[in-house]
Amino acid sequence: MNKPTSQSQFETPKVTTGPLPGSRRVYTSPATAPALKVPHREIDLHPTANEPPVRVYDTSGPYSDPHHKLDVEHGLPRHRLDWYKDRQVEAYEGRPLSPLDNGGASGKYLAREFPVRNKPLRARTEAAPVDSASSPCSMGEDTSWDSTKRAPLTQYEFAKAGIITPEMVYVAERENLGRKAAVEGAAARIADGESFGASIPEHVTPEFVRDEIARGRAIIPANINHPELEPMIIGRNFLTKINANIGNSAVASSVEEEVEKMVWAIRWGADTVMDLSTGKNIHNTREWILRNSPVPIGTVPIYQALEKVNGIAEDLTWEVFRDTLIEQAEQGVDYFTIHAGVRLAYVPLTADRVTGIVSRGGSIMAKWCLAHHKESFLYTHFEEICDIMRAYDVSFSLGDGLRPGSIADANDRAQFAELETLGELTKIAWEKGCQVMIEGPGHVAMHKIKENMDKQLKECHEAPFYTLGPLTTDIAPGYDHITSGIGAAMIGWFGCAMLCYVTPKEHLGLPDRDDVKVGVVTYKIAAHAGDLAKGHPAAKIRDDALSRARFEFRWEDQFNLALDPETARDFHDQTLPKEAHKVAHFCSMCGPKFCSMEITREIRDTFGSARAPNAVDAEAGMAEKAAEFKALGGEIYLEADKAQPVD
Amino acid sequence: MNKPTSQSQFETPKVTTGPLPGSRRVYTSPATAPALKVPHREIDLHPTANEPPVRVYDTSGPYSDPHHKLDVEHGLPRHRLDWYKDRQVEAYEGRPLSPLDNGGASGKYLAREFPVRNKPLRARTEAAPVDSASSPCSMGEDTSWDSTKRAPLTQYEFAKAGIITPEMVYVAERENLGRKAAVEGAAARIADGESFGASIPEHVTPEFVRDEIARGRAIIPANINHPELEPMIIGRNFLTKINANIGNSAVASSVEEEVEKMVWAIRWGADTVMDLSTGKNIHNTREWILRNSPVPIGTVPIYQALEKVNGIAEDLTWEVFRDTLIEQAEQGVDYFTIHAGVRLAYVPLTADRVTGIVSRGGSIMAKWCLAHHKESFLYTHFEEICDIMRAYDVSFSLGDGLRPGSIADANDRAQFAELETLGELTKIAWEKGCQVMIEGPGHVAMHKIKENMDKQLKECHEAPFYTLGPLTTDIAPGYDHITSGIGAAMIGWFGCAMLCYVTPKEHLGLPDRDDVKVGVVTYKIAAHAGDLAKGHPAAKIRDDALSRARFEFRWEDQFNLALDPETARDFHDQTLPKEAHKVAHFCSMCGPKFCSMEITREIRDTFGSARAPNAVDAEAGMAEKAAEFKALGGEIYLEADKAQPVD
Repeated sequence: MNKPTSQSQFETPKVTTGPLPGSRRVYTSPATAPALKVPHREIDLHPTANEPPVRVYDTSGPYSDPHHKLDVEHGLPRHRLDWYKDRQVEAYEGRPLSPLDNGGASGKYLAREFPVRNKPLRARTEAAPVDSASSPCSMGEDTSWDSTKRAPLTQYEFAKAGIITPEMVYVAERENLGRKAAVEGAAARIADGESFGASIPEHVTPEFVRDEIARGRAIIPANINHPELEPMIIGRNFLTKINANIGNSAVASSVEEEVEKMVWAIRWGADTVMDLSTGKNIHNTREWILRNSPVPIGTVPIYQALEKVNGIAEDLTWEVFRDTLIEQAEQGVDYFTIHAGVRLAYVPLTADRVTGIVSRGGSIMAKWCLAHHKESFLYTHFEEICDIMRAYDVSFSLGDGLRPGSIADANDRAQFAELETLGELTKIAWEKGCQVMIEGPGHVAMHKIKENMDKQLKECHEAPFYTLGPLTTDIAPGYDHITSGIGAAMIGWFGCAMLCYVTPKEHLGLPDRDDVKVGVVTYKIAAHAGDLAKGHPAAKIRDDALSRARFEFRWEDQFNLALDPETARDFHDQTLPKEAHKVAHFCSMCGPKFCSMEITREIRDTFGSARAPNAVDAEAGMAEKAAEFKALGGEIYLEADKAQPVD
Repeated sequence: MNKPTSQSQFETPKVTTGPLPGSRRVYTSPATAPALKVPHREIDLHPTANEPPVRVYDTSGPYSDPHHKLDVEHGLPRHRLDWYKDRQVEAYEGRPLSPLDNGGASGKYLAREFPVRNKPLRARTEAAPVDSASSPCSMGEDTSWDSTKRAPLTQYEFAKAGIITPEMVYVAERENLGRKAAVEGAAARIADGESFGASIPEHVTPEFVRDEIARGRAIIPANINHPELEPMIIGRNFLTKINANIGNSAVASSVEEEVEKMVWAIRWGADTVMDLSTGKNIHNTREWILRNSPVPIGTVPIYQALEKVNGIAEDLTWEVFRDTLIEQAEQGVDYFTIHAGVRLAYVPLTADRVTGIVSRGGSIMAKWCLAHHKESFLYTHFEEICDIMRAYDVSFSLGDGLRPGSIADANDRAQFAELETLGELTKIAWEKGCQVMIEGPGHVAMHKIKENMDKQLKECHEAPFYTLGPLTTDIAPGYDHITSGIGAAMIGWFGCAMLCYVTPKEHLGLPDRDDVKVGVVTYKIAAHAGDLAKGHPAAKIRDDALSRARFEFRWEDQFNLALDPETARDFHDQTLPKEAHKVAHFCSMCGPKFCSMEITREIRDTFGSARAPNAVDAEAGMAEKAAEFKALGGEIYLEADKAQPVD
């Protein structure tokens, strides 16, 4: 099915590097952990601003750091390995690679294997020898998944035990972006928001992170086999995150494209990336992505399992699925979408829907359940799934296989029946020691969005919610990044912890490089708008900095503070191309002769920066003020040289 | 300041014509008024759909009608003239054109005058002779604006008098799109929505329209001198409308571009168009636009008045402004933005803002007030403004000159003080017999949007609200159609009657053709998402039709039902270019081998279309069902010829 990757076969992926305009990647170290180097991005402002650089959250990884020596063939530094010293982990040979893992691709159709192979790690069996690496075992026969037999390894287990891990310290430092700068008046900012029950602290401490994880309200997706990771946290009391999907499909794409898509997506702000590859070369493609990814990688293991049974859903078995879980866990996938809530009894509830089951994983399981008239093996084997995921600290993303595919089907019984089951499974996963988040819709008109958030918090005991959009109307294919951006901003405000992006190509085709960028930027907007409305203490800093730049005609600062500096500059240059206009005290709306903002400057000169008197008091002494103003006579005209027409 | 229009000077504007893909412009006549021809657009579906055409609201005017004989040099048919027969109107010579009206442009810099000149109409003075055309009068000296001296002419006055005008009958028919089709189950649909106090009827009658106008809750912007108009209504109990701004600026654009921008904007769904031209040739540009516009045209008269005093705000006088109102009213402008709420005492309230006053009209008046230390002449002469506007039925759009220009300044005292004054002015305008709507912000974080809507309804006595966005964050210049589309959808849901679009170029440059289209489509999304959430009985019809097309792989129908069929088709073709794929039973997400929607079809085959049993009942008889299902054995594979790889 897949197109030949001959040319790409021996090619090293070309990835985008270098800082964003006006930005530097900087690192800070928590006082308690000087060895940790936590990345941020700092945007330098023009000297006339007389303001410190604006620090923003950075997802781009070492790719934006000119000092980093990039080598895609070897992958990113495996810095987290040092953090495992005191953990009960064992290295082992791992599951042997099977041709099926790449869909039986061979010859010129087989994507090149990643050059470096590392032994996988997992939680040590209590019985196992200290150097278990010397005692290889074949996962195929491994029967020791019973979690009671393995040492605790997950962030959830550490948190419950009161242990603060380096990952927790790292994300606390990372989340504190600009918090100190925001401290004075931060209370006011928090008050200036409606958080719907979220409790966002003034300052994020490692202890706060630990507590949120222990309560199941946040997760740090961080597979022990993904040491290249720059840990991040997902929870409604932290910055709202976004996910970008990539993945080759049966009808398009290649390994190189997928690695660059990942690098490109995180450059613009994707906090996690899901590899939704289907067809051939899934294993090798995923290995290249993981070894080069500083962000958590999520997958939907049932997709690969289906490939292993040649696309025939009813041929799926627990054994094939289990084998796929282990394969991907050993590679380092950080979270798995598991559609264990699609129960046999719920399938008929979708029969009268306008768009039935639109989740690919959901429909695979529905078909399996019907064909065998059996309960889903994902549901019946859920505890074993937990045991496997726990051994590597793969987080659950409990899939919404029955999400609505249209406005007409939103919030129906099928959707909510599954959500209730996801709540039941959440408790089981927690008991097993796993980290859990919950996936949500989909297509939902605005007035039905809050019900989704409220019901998820209630049924799933405040486990983080992770939604796709939702799209607020069905009538705009080609613009579904926007129809869904509206819903995403709202549900982010209501408490959704992570928003899965939608690109302009949704429903129509596979996103290209530009679509990925537009999708990511749109979702950064939604996530940030939600943080602002929640009253996140750090969110408003960037808006205010950009607004001051706008007011003071610091065009370069306005571009550089934008989510997409390149597009902002390009749009400006289309109307006012001359370099001179970058410093001009006017914009294209009013033109050089008259300028609204100039007038405000005059008002400010007249009344000073002290809090303005209220309307009534203002009347008093206005004559005097007006006199001063005339005296000032600050004109709004520009010097002739700046007032030339632009052709 | 303006660029030479030499080449354009003798050129006839080229405009875009022809129907949208799969669409026909159709006309219906109300039973009570067979002479009226009310336009709609019908989208034909594929025969396999076995569904009637989907009727949608059509703003495109005769330009999309292949049967219409287009002549931009003569303008659109002046069909409304027949409706005036029984009205107390007089034709008169009108105000003589002054070189200042075009900014003193001359020679190759002067845009060509529109070839046809019609005598303006106005409400007759009770005293005036029946054929007042024989008694020319110079508006310059006219002193008979006292409204008690002129016959009632406005839709508001007719409505108060219990008179149903052809305009009211026309908009009732126009708004009833698909209502009949929606009647069964419409109640359910209405129940399925949160209207926040709006009362949208099952079926819109002329009497309902009259009553809403009489209550001041809706307006029909329809200057007596714009007989080319296809009347539309603005009110929260009707479909949410959108406005697109065009206009040449001191730094760019030409007459031809502006006329085509108008035609282009309405093609994609703009319900009204504001001409915000500055610089030279304002008068002639506006005439070309009006004579060719089937939608209401709005302006901000203070912009042209400022040009008449060479851009020096403090040189503005009531006389210059009054003269400009008459000039534009005679041309047929349907609504004026009047910033009469920017009072002297409110100016100091903006001194401590992050972005001060960003409204161009607001800052012009603020400067005037400060320079003279006088109350705004728009406020002190408000009743005379009402008298002039009433004589032509120009509707008020009371401007929000103190709207916030940043998240930091939203909902502050300056903004709300002005809003309270607008409420006071609304009552005066109504007493004078004028139609009124109220302009709103701007830049507002999500949690502060509803307060804007609630306060506007309260302070302005339910007069229609007309907002710009609002933008929900400041950090995404280049994407402000999206940052504002989020806020627009929300405030539309809360009750905003019309949404002023924002293009991707906002804050950066002047929108080109593509920006206008993207802005309009984005705002159609916002308006429609709002109507869906309000439970508008007709809104969901199009979503459901498109969702059925999507589910049944009727790709052509999915494209044609989209707000932007061309982009939808183009995106699809980028991934699956072959014509064959337009009928393929798969999409690029899953590929030819496995298809989610196929599986739902199988489920539907298994359980039939009867309402599905609930989860518990479902268990019973499932074995039997599964047996049937296996018997059916409907496979999801496609024939080999459809399953070829696509390169």
